[in-house]
Amino acid sequence: MKSIQAVSYPVLFEKKAYLELSNLIDKNNYSTIFILVDENTLAHCYPKFTPNLATQKRIEIIEIESGEINKNLETCIGVWNAITELGGDRKSLLITLGGGVITDLGGFVASCFKRGIDFVNIPTTLLSMVDASVGGKTGVDLGVLKNQIGLFANPEIVIVDTDYLETVTEREIKSGTAEIIKYGVTYDINLFNEIKDNKSLNISDLIFRSVEIKNEVVLQDPKEKNLRKILNFGHTLGHAIESFYLESENKENLTHGEAIAIGMVCECYMSSKLLGFPIEKVNEVKEVVLSIYNKTSLLKEDFSAIMELLKHDKKNINGQVNFVLLNDFEDYKLDCKVSEELIVESMEFYNV
Amino acid sequence: MKSIQAVSYPVLFEKKAYLELSNLIDKNNYSTIFILVDENTLAHCYPKFTPNLATQKRIEIIEIESGEINKNLETCIGVWNAITELGGDRKSLLITLGGGVITDLGGFVASCFKRGIDFVNIPTTLLSMVDASVGGKTGVDLGVLKNQIGLFANPEIVIVDTDYLETVTEREIKSGTAEIIKYGVTYDINLFNEIKDNKSLNISDLIFRSVEIKNEVVLQDPKEKNLRKILNFGHTLGHAIESFYLESENKENLTHGEAIAIGMVCECYMSSKLLGFPIEKVNEVKEVVLSIYNKTSLLKEDFSAIMELLKHDKKNINGQVNFVLLNDFEDYKLDCKVSEELIVESMEFYNV
Repeated sequence: MKSIQAVSYPVLFEKKAYLELSNLIDKNNYSTIFILVDENTLAHCYPKFTPNLATQKRIEIIEIESGEINKNLETCIGVWNAITELGGDRKSLLITLGGGVITDLGGFVASCFKRGIDFVNIPTTLLSMVDASVGGKTGVDLGVLKNQIGLFANPEIVIVDTDYLETVTEREIKSGTAEIIKYGVTYDINLFNEIKDNKSLNISDLIFRSVEIKNEVVLQDPKEKNLRKILNFGHTLGHAIESFYLESENKENLTHGEAIAIGMVCECYMSSKLLGFPIEKVNEVKEVVLSIYNKTSLLKEDFSAIMELLKHDKKNINGQVNFVLLNDFEDYKLDCKVSEELIVESMEFYNV
Repeated sequence: MKSIQAVSYPVLFEKKAYLELSNLIDKNNYSTIFILVDENTLAHCYPKFTPNLATQKRIEIIEIESGEINKNLETCIGVWNAITELGGDRKSLLITLGGGVITDLGGFVASCFKRGIDFVNIPTTLLSMVDASVGGKTGVDLGVLKNQIGLFANPEIVIVDTDYLETVTEREIKSGTAEIIKYGVTYDINLFNEIKDNKSLNISDLIFRSVEIKNEVVLQDPKEKNLRKILNFGHTLGHAIESFYLESENKENLTHGEAIAIGMVCECYMSSKLLGFPIEKVNEVKEVVLSIYNKTSLLKEDFSAIMELLKHDKKNINGQVNFVLLNDFEDYKLDCKVSEELIVESMEFYNV
C-alpha cells in the first residue's frame, strides 16, 4: 500500500487503506461511528464505501446539504445536535466522506464536539484529495468570508481512493486540477508540464505527488509562518473572486478551482510587474488555464467589491493585503505588497 | 509579584500583573486589542481595568449579554462578526474581562477566529478565578448541554486581581466558594476546614491555593484521562441539576456553585454507600453547604428530567454515567458506576 506520513497520521492510498481503518476502529474501540455525507456522497460514494468498512460498531449517517453555501456554523450546529441526539460521546468517531466542504466542516465539528473526538477523512473529489488531505486546516465560512472560523486539527487517518472520482463531474475534476497546477508552478514544474502537455495523465500519480508536496510544505511550516504561504498562491485574489461570485445572486458561482485559476493568472501577472517573473511564463500559465476552464468575464464594475473582499483575507495584517508571488517557476517570494492599481490591472490582463 | 506557572503561560496575581500584560502587547505588536465584556463588567470592571492598560494600540470593546443563557454559538457568531467588522486579523489580541461565560466563550472565539488568535483571560468573579484561570477549557453550551462545544486552548497570560471581586454580588462569591470546597474535600482538606471554621477568610490566599491545586492536577493530566477527573467531583450530578434549572421556565436558575454544592452533597452520599466514605463526613459536607447556600427543594417529579440530562454528561461513554467518588477526604476513585436508584436516593438525602 502506498502511503504518506503526515505530521501525526498517515495518508493511505488504494483499497488496502480500508484495512487500516478497520484496525483503527478495533484498536480504539469507538462507541459509535458517525459518517458525515451530503446528498450526493450518500447516493454515490457511500455505496462504494460501505462494503469496505468491516466493523460491528453502531454506524449512524449524518447528512448535510451539499455546497459551499452550507459550509457555515448553522450547519455545524445541526450536525452537533444530530450527534448529540444520536448519543455521541467522547469515544465516538466521525468519518467524513465527501469533498472539501464535508472534510473541512467535519474536522471542525469533530474537533469541537465535547472538546474533540477522533475523525477520519475520506475525500471524494479531486480537490479535497490534493488539498484537504494534509495540512490540518478545518473550518467553515462566516458569511461570505471563507474559512474564517476554524482551527488546526489532525485526523487519525486519511484515505485517498480514486474510485470516488468516478462519482464526480468533469467540472469538479477540473476544479481540483487548479491545485495541481499550483503545486506545479510553485514547487515542481513537472506537474505543470504534465498538465500542459496533456499526455495521458495518470491521475493517481498526480494526486500522490501533490499530496507529497503539500505534506513536505506543511511539515516544514505547520502554522503558516513562512513556506506554507506558497500554498496560497493564486488564492489571495482567487478567494476574493470566489467569495464575490458566491454572494452575487445574479451570477453563477465559480468552483474553487475556477476562481483559483483566475487568481493564479492574475498573480503571475503581478509577479511579472513586481519581481520580473518572465512574461512568457505568465502567458504560458494563462494559456493552460484557458485551455481547461471557460473564460470568466470579470466586470469592471465588480472590481471594487472584489477589492473589498480582499481586505478580509485571513493573511492580512493591519489591513495590508499580502500576496505570495513568483520570481520564477519554483521560486516564490512571500508577503508581497501589491497596489490596488496593479491588482485591478492584473484582472484586466486576465480579461483580454 | 505572585505567580503560578501553568502549562504554557503564567497566572499572575495582583497589580504588577498588568505590567506583564503591557509587555506582552509590546512584544507581540498586536494590530488591535479587542476586549470582551458583558454589560456588568463593562460598567463595573472595565473602569478598574483600563487605567492599568498602558498601550497606544487601537482598543475595541465588544459587549455581549451576561448570563449562562447567552453562552452559546449564536453569541459566538455575533462576536466573530463584530471582530470581522472591526478589522480583526491574525495579529489581534482578545482580552476577556468577566466571569466564566466571558472567559470560556472568549477563549473559544479567539481559538477559532482565523484558526486562532492570542487571548488573555482576566476573570472577574471568584468562580472564574478559581476555576477558569487554568486548565485550557474553552467552550459554549449547546442548548441546555453545558460546554458541549469547545476545545482545549491556552491563553497567553491570566491575571487574577481580587479588586474585581468588589464588583460582584455575595451570591456570586458563594458560587465560587463551592469550587474551593471541592478542592478541599478532594485534594487539600485544609481549604475545606478553613471555610468550615469560617475564621477570618483570606480570600486571596484561598484563591491562590485553589489555582495552585488546579494547576497541579491539570499539569499531570491535561486531557482529563485520569487525575483531572477529580475536578468533576460534584459536577456530574451538579451540572445536570444546573441544566435542569436553566431550562425550567418556571424555576429560578441556580448559580453554578449552588448546583455543584448540591452535587457534592449527593456524590458524598453515593460515596458513603458505594465506597464506605464515612457518613459523619457526608454530614459535615452537607452542613457546611447548607450553612452557605439556601436549601433548594429538589422535587420528586423533576428527578426523571434530571436523570435524562445526566445521560448527556461529556464524561459518559457508551451511555454509562461515570462519577468521581471519595473513599475519604483527599482520596478519590474515578469512573464509578452508580445505579439510577442510588442517584435518586442521594437527591432524597440532600432534600431531608
